[in-house]
Amino acid sequence: MIQIAVLGYGVVGSGVLEVLQTNRESIDRRAGKEIRIKYVLDRREFAEDPVSSILVHDIEPILNDPDVKVVVEVMGGVEPAYTFVKEALLRGKSVVTSNKELVAKHGPELLQIAREKNINFLFEASVGGGIPIIRPLNQSLTADEIYEITGILNGTTNFILTKMKEEGLPFETVLKEAQDLGYAERNPEADVEGHDACRKIAILSSLAFGMHVDFEDIDTEGITKISQVDMAYAAKMDREIKLVATSKKKDHEVWARVSPVLLHMDHPLSNVHGVFNAIYVKGNVIGDVMFYGKGAGKLPTASAVVADIIDAVKHLQRNIMAFWSTEKMELLDIRHAPAQYFIRIAYTDVKVAMDLVENLFGKVDFIQLKEATDEIGFITNEAIENELIEKIEKLSKSTGIKEVRNKIRVE
Amino acid sequence: MIQIAVLGYGVVGSGVLEVLQTNRESIDRRAGKEIRIKYVLDRREFAEDPVSSILVHDIEPILNDPDVKVVVEVMGGVEPAYTFVKEALLRGKSVVTSNKELVAKHGPELLQIAREKNINFLFEASVGGGIPIIRPLNQSLTADEIYEITGILNGTTNFILTKMKEEGLPFETVLKEAQDLGYAERNPEADVEGHDACRKIAILSSLAFGMHVDFEDIDTEGITKISQVDMAYAAKMDREIKLVATSKKKDHEVWARVSPVLLHMDHPLSNVHGVFNAIYVKGNVIGDVMFYGKGAGKLPTASAVVADIIDAVKHLQRNIMAFWSTEKMELLDIRHAPAQYFIRIAYTDVKVAMDLVENLFGKVDFIQLKEATDEIGFITNEAIENELIEKIEKLSKSTGIKEVRNKIRVE
Repeated sequence: MIQIAVLGYGVVGSGVLEVLQTNRESIDRRAGKEIRIKYVLDRREFAEDPVSSILVHDIEPILNDPDVKVVVEVMGGVEPAYTFVKEALLRGKSVVTSNKELVAKHGPELLQIAREKNINFLFEASVGGGIPIIRPLNQSLTADEIYEITGILNGTTNFILTKMKEEGLPFETVLKEAQDLGYAERNPEADVEGHDACRKIAILSSLAFGMHVDFEDIDTEGITKISQVDMAYAAKMDREIKLVATSKKKDHEVWARVSPVLLHMDHPLSNVHGVFNAIYVKGNVIGDVMFYGKGAGKLPTASAVVADIIDAVKHLQRNIMAFWSTEKMELLDIRHAPAQYFIRIAYTDVKVAMDLVENLFGKVDFIQLKEATDEIGFITNEAIENELIEKIEKLSKSTGIKEVRNKIRVE
Repeated sequence: MIQIAVLGYGVVGSGVLEVLQTNRESIDRRAGKEIRIKYVLDRREFAEDPVSSILVHDIEPILNDPDVKVVVEVMGGVEPAYTFVKEALLRGKSVVTSNKELVAKHGPELLQIAREKNINFLFEASVGGGIPIIRPLNQSLTADEIYEITGILNGTTNFILTKMKEEGLPFETVLKEAQDLGYAERNPEADVEGHDACRKIAILSSLAFGMHVDFEDIDTEGITKISQVDMAYAAKMDREIKLVATSKKKDHEVWARVSPVLLHMDHPLSNVHGVFNAIYVKGNVIGDVMFYGKGAGKLPTASAVVADIIDAVKHLQRNIMAFWSTEKMELLDIRHAPAQYFIRIAYTDVKVAMDLVENLFGKVDFIQLKEATDEIGFITNEAIENELIEKIEKLSKSTGIKEVRNKIRVE
């Protein structure tokens, strides 16, 4: 029998208990040992809940108990999670976490400790909820040099964008609906500004490229500026607007960003709707593969946590995670990386505007909507971001152009 | 350094050599040891090819060489692959294979030998080419009870169906084009009659349910009866016709089948086009997950083989594959399983035909195409297959009905 402790009895924590209970028999069979929860740590009381018999409010008894072999951290946030996890690892306990902030910020150090102690620090649930992606990157795509990871990594924003498209509603209305349904938090900034996706792509990039990609280096733009008019253009161009997190490698240079992107309907990610997430990986021999599933939610996330617990129990004295170096990867400034934009300009004279655009950007296809008769839209060719931005600025200052109303990346 | 032998220098075999060469540095790093090919077995000569220096025509030197720790079987077909693989395992060499016929027919026995010897029999490439699916089923979805696996598991038929849809061409024309492009074999039966997909879903079902699912028990129907008119109905109903292999579990009963299916455009598999494959898995806690990628091809398949080689090298004396029992799983006869059909009937009198249909099947929506004015189509409600088939037969014999032109499953 293996005893474990669960830190945090919130949505994911209670899900972990539920999954371990529901599928107890098959989980124990696959782990090769009975897995039993000895402690649940939470600051709160749960008087009416059976958990109260194993509930503790202090980390010390858990850290001091040699019977606890695996610590499951599902509290979220950097502190006190980091202190608890680090101390558990230093005392030889494997750690499983669903905490993307923790992994994005302290992953290399915690992996390093686990490696030195020949135990495990596992975090499948920290990216893509239930979608198996960390383990496939770590163990399945090992024959490949990965040169791109692109994902829809945030269910809240994907739900909002899907609703905006399908029901023709503005961002604010849909956000409010998502909040009422519990899909978005009261303070939605981490989701709608792209911070959540940013941490996740940092973790995936670090794993794929073997060096620490600092999430603070990743250019991040959210979806708050996406309007109904943008959605109408997207429909007209047979494209979908998605919040895309991407990381690409070319000739030893890596760049990464999070931003809304107009994806062509042929792109597999364009068909990922609602709260679903998907991660698209390109390798130099495997070609394109994609992993799809629920990126969040109590049980999908708990499923990933429990799969990690099983792996930790099966490999109590054997480090199985790919290492990623504590060395920081210097990302290419995205201003020097290739980009392509969809641009909307309001004009005073359409003919003048078109000439100005084609003088700057070369020949393009113009789109004009019934919904916005004082503007036109077009997609640039691919070029270095800096050059495009300069041209967009020049355009915005030209006589005959009223304003550049929006610019959205295209892939 | 670990020495390996590759049995078969065809498409996949030469791909394995290419991948090991191309990504040598990262592969050796991930394996933790240098991987070197000591022998390549093939009946043929390759005089101009550097492989000739390590080419052998006989299995004995490989089996007798204690330096060979891993044998890679990429010959295809049941014999002599089975004899070679079994003997290699018995002599304590781990085996990696891409051979679905071998795994579907002898998987349980070979897994059993590997288990007893504490070595590995790995077969990621046998299903879905480069798509990581065996390892995720084995190691990632371990917290779940899986109750459905549904996949597009054959790239040739998916290419044909995609082309038929997009270009409005008949099956025979597209088949010929696929043969000319090398996507279909001269004898296309294994693909177009569904036999290939059948072996793959047998392997996936065995892994998911832990008992041996015999591919010969799986009801299998190919795509040769799919016509341009069927495609026109599908388009009108906002559906895609795909060759779908599925295996479902409900209340301890498992049923499986391979057949063309009309998938609604909301179904993630409906967006899998051309030579791409995808596998959709439902678990009781993770919900729905999908794995997508190239299901065949030299390099994607070789990528999966090499990932298995790395795993075999990392775990030379440690069995890591989930066991599936040699005990045979008794499948529920699909005639007793739930089904839903799209049915096309040619009539002499449309009013009479509609009344007959609704008397038998209850209220349905009828579809009438400009392309086929002497017939109507409709989708039944879900019912037990036997009952539906009886009603379809009754319908076909009714006065006022000329014939039942086709029936295609719906999911």
